Formats: sequence, C-alpha cells, structure tokens
Amino acid sequence: MDNLEHFRQLVKELKAYQYVMNVIGWDSETEAPRGAFGPRADVMGVIGGEIFRRSTSQEYQDVVNALYADIDGLDANTAKEIRRAKKALDKIIKIPEAEFIAYQRLLTLAQPAWEDAKAKNDFPGFQPFLADLVAANRKFVGYYGLPGEPYDIMLDEFEEGMTMADYDKFFAVLKRDLVPFVKKVLAAKRDRKDPFAEAKFPVEKQLKFSQYLLDVMKFDRSRGLLKKSVHPFTWNTSPADVRLTTRYSEDALWGSVFSTIHELGHATYEQQIDPVWDPTLLNSGTTMGIHESQSRMYENIFGRSRPFWEKHLPELKKLFPTQLKGATVDDVVYAANKVEASMIRTEADELTYPLHIMLRYDIERMLFSGKLAVADLPATWNRLMKDYLGITPKNDTEGVLQDVHWSSGLFGYFPTYALGTAYAAQIHRAMKKELDVDAILRSGDMTPINAWLKEKIHKFGGSKSPEQIMDDVTGEPFNPNYYVDYLKAKYTALYLS
Amino acid sequence: MDNLEHFRQLVKELKAYQYVMNVIGWDSETEAPRGAFGPRADVMGVIGGEIFRRSTSQEYQDVVNALYADIDGLDANTAKEIRRAKKALDKIIKIPEAEFIAYQRLLTLAQPAWEDAKAKNDFPGFQPFLADLVAANRKFVGYYGLPGEPYDIMLDEFEEGMTMADYDKFFAVLKRDLVPFVKKVLAAKRDRKDPFAEAKFPVEKQLKFSQYLLDVMKFDRSRGLLKKSVHPFTWNTSPADVRLTTRYSEDALWGSVFSTIHELGHATYEQQIDPVWDPTLLNSGTTMGIHESQSRMYENIFGRSRPFWEKHLPELKKLFPTQLKGATVDDVVYAANKVEASMIRTEADELTYPLHIMLRYDIERMLFSGKLAVADLPATWNRLMKDYLGITPKNDTEGVLQDVHWSSGLFGYFPTYALGTAYAAQIHRAMKKELDVDAILRSGDMTPINAWLKEKIHKFGGSKSPEQIMDDVTGEPFNPNYYVDYLKAKYTALYLS
Repeated sequence: MDNLEHFRQLVKELKAYQYVMNVIGWDSETEAPRGAFGPRADVMGVIGGEIFRRSTSQEYQDVVNALYADIDGLDANTAKEIRRAKKALDKIIKIPEAEFIAYQRLLTLAQPAWEDAKAKNDFPGFQPFLADLVAANRKFVGYYGLPGEPYDIMLDEFEEGMTMADYDKFFAVLKRDLVPFVKKVLAAKRDRKDPFAEAKFPVEKQLKFSQYLLDVMKFDRSRGLLKKSVHPFTWNTSPADVRLTTRYSEDALWGSVFSTIHELGHATYEQQIDPVWDPTLLNSGTTMGIHESQSRMYENIFGRSRPFWEKHLPELKKLFPTQLKGATVDDVVYAANKVEASMIRTEADELTYPLHIMLRYDIERMLFSGKLAVADLPATWNRLMKDYLGITPKNDTEGVLQDVHWSSGLFGYFPTYALGTAYAAQIHRAMKKELDVDAILRSGDMTPINAWLKEKIHKFGGSKSPEQIMDDVTGEPFNPNYYVDYLKAKYTALYLS
Repeated sequence: MDNLEHFRQLVKELKAYQYVMNVIGWDSETEAPRGAFGPRADVMGVIGGEIFRRSTSQEYQDVVNALYADIDGLDANTAKEIRRAKKALDKIIKIPEAEFIAYQRLLTLAQPAWEDAKAKNDFPGFQPFLADLVAANRKFVGYYGLPGEPYDIMLDEFEEGMTMADYDKFFAVLKRDLVPFVKKVLAAKRDRKDPFAEAKFPVEKQLKFSQYLLDVMKFDRSRGLLKKSVHPFTWNTSPADVRLTTRYSEDALWGSVFSTIHELGHATYEQQIDPVWDPTLLNSGTTMGIHESQSRMYENIFGRSRPFWEKHLPELKKLFPTQLKGATVDDVVYAANKVEASMIRTEADELTYPLHIMLRYDIERMLFSGKLAVADLPATWNRLMKDYLGITPKNDTEGVLQDVHWSSGLFGYFPTYALGTAYAAQIHRAMKKELDVDAILRSGDMTPINAWLKEKIHKFGGSKSPEQIMDDVTGEPFNPNYYVDYLKAKYTALYLS
C-alpha cells in the first residue's frame, strides 16, 4: 500500500468515527430527551478519545508527514488535502489526550445547559459552561504555538487566511459606508400596514409551507430531510445525506420561512458537491464564509425579493387565507425587508444584520484577548447593543443567550456571516450577467440558478479557496463595496425614494 | 486495577460503541433518507469491526476468562454477568472478523431493501438479502460448535434456555386446547356494528391520542420520546433514554392505539430498571419473552379491557367526534377484541395471534434445518396461512414480507411473542391477587400497576432469569394453562355466552 492509499484508509476510518459523532449530535439537537445527555457525555468521551488517538497515532503522523515531505509531487487537489491534514495534525498533537476528551464531554453537557439557560433567562446557569469553553479554547490555541493572537487562530478555523486585521478592514468599510446609511433608513421608518405582524400562524401550516419551499428550491428528499430544532442548522455527512432544521413559532411566520430558505442555501451547496470528493478531506463546503454566501444569497437576495413572492404568495395565502386576506406582493416585500433595530440576530433584517455581527466580533475579540471576563458578558452585550443599535435587551434570553454557537464551542464563526453576505452580493452581481435571475425566481423553478451555482461553486467542494472562488466566479478579488452598493440600492428604493 | 474493575472498564468502552450503533440504528429506522444507507453501510463496517476487535481482544478474553475461572468467588449478580459475558465471548471468537464486518454491512443494506420490497410487493427484490442473512446466521451458529440444532442456538439468543423441544411442548398445549376453541369463536362470528371499521381517522389526531396514552401510562418524557416508523419498536440505551415508535394509517385507528400501548409496555419496563445496573451487562430487560410479557399485558390485558375504555373513550371521542358519534364502551370492547382470521400479525386479535406465531416458528425451523429454501418462502407462507387460519394472502406485502424481524437478522425471536403472552396471563393472575387491577384501569392512573411491576420484575433488569421471575412473582413455574384459561374465559364471555 503506498502512502496515499494508506492515508485514504486511515481517513476513511477516522471519518467513520466523525460520522457517528455527527449522528449523535443530530439526535442531540433535534430530539434526544433530557435524560439522554448524562450517559451520552460518557459515550462522547470514549468515542472522542478514539478519534483523538487515531488523529494523533504514530501511524497517521508518519503517513501525513511522508506525504507532506513530498508535497510537490502530488496533484494540486491532493496537495491541498494533505496541507489541510498536516495543519490539523500539527494542532491536535499539541493537545493532551485527557483535555481533548474532557472537552468532548463539556460540549455534550454545554448544549442542554445553554438550552435551559435560554429558556429560563438564567445566564448564571450557563456561565460556568461558557467559562470552561472559552478557557479550553484559549488553552488549546496556546498549545498550538502558532504565530498571531489567539483570536486570529480561532478565526482561521472558520475562514482560512482571515485574521483580525482583515476583518477590521472589512468592518471599517461597513462602519464608514453602511452604518450612516442604516441610521438614515431607520429614521425614515414608514408607517405601513403589515398584515403579518399581528396574526397567528398555526405551526402545522408553517411546516407545510416549509415543505413547499423544499420543492421550490429543488431539494432532493431522497438525500435529505427537514426537521425542527431550537436553533436552525444544516447537517451533512455526504451529498447523499443532507439535513436542515427550522424553528417554528405561531407568532413568527417569517422566522420559519426565512430560516428554511437560509438553510436550503447551505443544504443545496452540500447536495451539489461532486461525490468524487467523498473519500477525501475536501468533501464539504470550502469555508464558512463561502457557505454563508450561499445561505444568505438564498435567504436575502432570492427569498426576500419581489419576483420570488410574485410566484409564491398565492401558495402562502392558500395556507393562511384568513390571516393573509387582501395581502399583496408589496405587503410581503415590505414585511420581509422591514428595517428596524431589533434584538435577535437570526430575525434581523438584512440592513441591520451586520451590526449584530460586529457586536459579536467585538465581544469574541475581547474574550480571547483576556480583556473581557465571561461574568461580564451580559453587561457588555447590552452596552454594545445600545451603541450599535440604540436598544437594550430586556433580558439575557433576547441578549447574550440568544445564539447556539458558543455552547457548541464555535468562537470565530460569527464574522463569517457578514463576510459571506458580502461574498453573496459580489457573486450575485456576476450571476446576473449570465442569468435572468428575476425571471427565474418568478418562474418558480430554481433549476437554472442551482445549476449555475453547482458549476461555479458547489461541485468543487473544499478544493477551492474563497480567493479562488471569488476570482473564478466574479473575475476579481473580494470587494466589500459591492455589498454596500447592493444594500444601498435596495434600501434606497424601498425606503428613501 | 483488579480483574473486575478492568472488566468494567472494557465493558464501558464496548458499550459506548454499541451505543453509537444503536443511535445510528434509531436514525435509520425512523428518519434517515434513502441516500444515507450506502455511506452508512461503510461506517457500520468500520464501527462493527472495532466492536468485533474489542469483543475478541486478548485483553478482554484474558479478563473474562480469569473472572470465569474464579466464578464461585463472585457475588451472584456478578457471576451471572460473567457467565453471560463468557457465553457471548465463546461465540464471537469463533466468527472470522471479515465475516462479522460483512454481516454488519449486510444488516444496514437489508433494512431499506426490505422496506422497498414491502412497499412494492417485491419479494424477489428482498430475497438475496434474506438468503444472505439466513446463510450468515447458519454459518455463525456452525462456527460456535455448540451442541444442539442450529435453530436451538438461535432460540437461546432470545430466550435463554428455551429449545425447540420446550417450544414444541408449549405450542402442543395451544394446539390441543386453544386451536379448537379459536375455531369455535371464529364460527360464532357476530354481526355487530363496528363504528371503527369504515371511518377515516386523521393521522395528526391519532398522534395526539398516542401522546395522551403516554400520559395515561405515566411514561416519563424527560427520559424518552415517541416517534413514528414503518414498524413499531422500542429502543433504549439506558433507563434515561427509552424511545418508542408507532405507525399510523388513516384507516387503522386501532393500529396506532394498540401499537403505542404495546410499546409502552416495553418502554415502561426499560424506564423502571434500577440504574444500579447501568455499568453492567444486566442493564436491560432479562429476555425477550419477559419483555413481551410486559408489552402484551399492557396491550391486551389492560389496553383491550372494558375498565380501560370506560375511562378513556371520552378522550378518544373528543378527538374524533364525527367518527365516533354514538360509540359506546361496548362498541370499543367489541372492536378491540374482534376475532377474525386476518393477514397481519401485528393487527391480529389476541385469540388468533398465537397462530401467526406458530406459522413463523414452523418456517424458521425449516429454514434453519435446511428443509426450506428462501426462494420457496412465499409459497410455504401462504400454505401455512391456509392451514392455520384458512385464508390466503393476496400478495407478499401482506404475507411473507410483513414483518421487520428477518431484515434485522432476528431469527428465533418470534416464538417469544407467544411465550411472553402466556407469561403475561400468569403474571396478571398473580397481580390480581394483590391489586384491584380493574379499579386501577378505571381510575386512569397506572401508577399502582407500574409500581407493582417495577418492584416484582422491572427493577431487576437482567439479573433474574425468566424461571426466577415466574417463581418469585407467581409462586410457581411457568404454566401455559393459565394463558389458555385466560383466553377461554375472556372470549367465552365475549362470543359464546
């Protein structure tokens, strides 16, 4: 067996263990009863330990290092894969096994602790878990011994190559060009009837509309499914098994509609990856930023557009004839793009959304530089909400406890949402040169758009970097001005004209 | 670390791997999309291989053999556990690793193949899987090199100590005393209005009634959940996580009601096992026969009784006011105990039920003695249906393809259903001496019955044999006459008086 074959065999086994962790995670987040989590934490410890041993075994180290030593002899894709494996290996071998296993247990227990704390507005109940999560991640980053600040290393895990310096530059553009515009739009607030604001929308009917959206977006149900969970997410083990979740509340029709469309963006990406990448480490979306570009494009650029609702409002009205009696496409476009300073990131409009991200970026940065203690998080959160959006959460449930990410150990993830949204604007601009996007949305058949995205982005899986994708798809490097231009054009038309 | 501690540590790790297989199995049977099964089979192969290696490692062999050599020095429960471990070890070490792994893959693929075949009435589509499953099991039993016929070894896996000779004796009693009585009742068929036979019962409302039944039976939702699947089953990893499924069809209200109650019998057993057994091999119900005694007692003796419906019919009528307008408790008792020769075991009435089991016992016996080829199964099935019940399936979907068991490699399981039902009659007889069972059922609060079952049976987990349980609970050995007596009394009152 040559080194590459040997590597493939070890990766196949390692992936089997990650697969079972994924299935257990899916169960935990979508249905496991509360009693399951205690015994489950022990299991995660055992399996996590096995993953650690396999990821750090001498056998695996030898084969990765041998391939890396001869990396110039490999084809470009394999070289990329080996570089990725080597980078991960050089990190994980620095972590003591016992600490790695303890961290797996911590993750299993932190998830229900966060859910409870959020349900009960009990930040102190979650605080020790969060403190442990931050401490463990800071410690791990310390072990790596890599150059750069701890938070730079965290950011790199979700968007390879992006540092605080890069994000600072990006957010500076938004602060300079977008924030004053947001203020202007907020001030121009219109008094317009919103038939969606007061009505109740039975959850069973929202479930039906979510299923309808799966059909609209051409989601392949033989290779995936839709379910509900506290926090919407997309889950995948291969293009053959891609699942998404949505949350439902009788009071918030748009919450389920746009969560479903958002997750369908992620899910379509994963379903359209070429199965040729299955046995490799490049078998998933390339970075979180590119992933979010797909979900945010689906959600905002397509899902909140007029042509989309010209086609689909009649279907929505069939399900909610009383609630939506007399509602027009104009009403929907207004409601789906209503700009207001609000508490919840996932329900925020497209225009104030990046402000929610900047707040989280500021907080994570302070947490990882040691300038902010976990105990002081709620006060800092509330202060920043006031600074960015001019409002104050009435409790931690709608404040610092609102997001799932930190309870899953995901620090450094949030900025990719804003970055991905900006990627999306630039990709959409390129798409419009080749496709009549509005006509396609109006037709109700996403096939041509999905085919374009597959050909340009999806099928490559993790084999292209964001830089390559932006260059290949748009003919130029990433440029945040397109994002600012897109938002200004859209919201000037809606609010300031 | 002494041998017992060492054994506990290895068992803990082994159980973690079985746990992940269980979670994946739960996912496969309740929601995984079709596309998942291909990649999943590979994963099951990897994890199955690890389970095999751990179950047969020199380290594990040494510690089990050392404890077994000194078994007289162990307390009774530990001795029982070590005997069980030794018995399993002596079997599995005879199976070549590659064949064990191939069998795990086969199981993963056979499940969806059976579902497809059943949906499409396509026995030939399932036949090669079934042939492989039978062949693999016969081969494994051959490897064990144990005394007795192959089918005896299979039977022992589900009801320790029971052989064909024992079952023959049991079924002989039924053939002699019950079968003529069944014929008499079938002949006495009454023409009585059945308000349930023609109506449609929307599935969402059946779901609600199933949830109501969970409350009635005092199922602890913080340690379990109810879901739907093609074939109802109960699943558990510990008393802290016990799940049951039900199937729903608009045409078959009783299908969901009695499946739910049946599975609640299993689930209550598992939830009431003392957690002290958690780290041991005795942490589940003792045998399938005793397990079925609990589910069949719940389903038939409690769930199909008059006092039960005196309490719960009003709740059912609230959900189905049109369908059940004017329905009386008498109507329900009649409908729930209607005796007829029918095709589907899981929908069969209590009286014809054992005939369905005898048919399967006859077939498995022939399959494992080599007297019946898999290709000839449908014809043999249909012939035996004619012999036992006087009817012929119109296709294989309602014939040989109806049950999930064989696609899961469960050969030798079926007879425990009849045996368990007979255990139940004897246990119920003992219960009635200490509790006013009818009054408890009429009260709508199962607490006293559950408490009795916990104290007498459930809390002991796998630490008592069926013989011990029958002796301790009823004061005498198992006696099938109580089962015959129970059925004769009940159905004489309903049909022949």
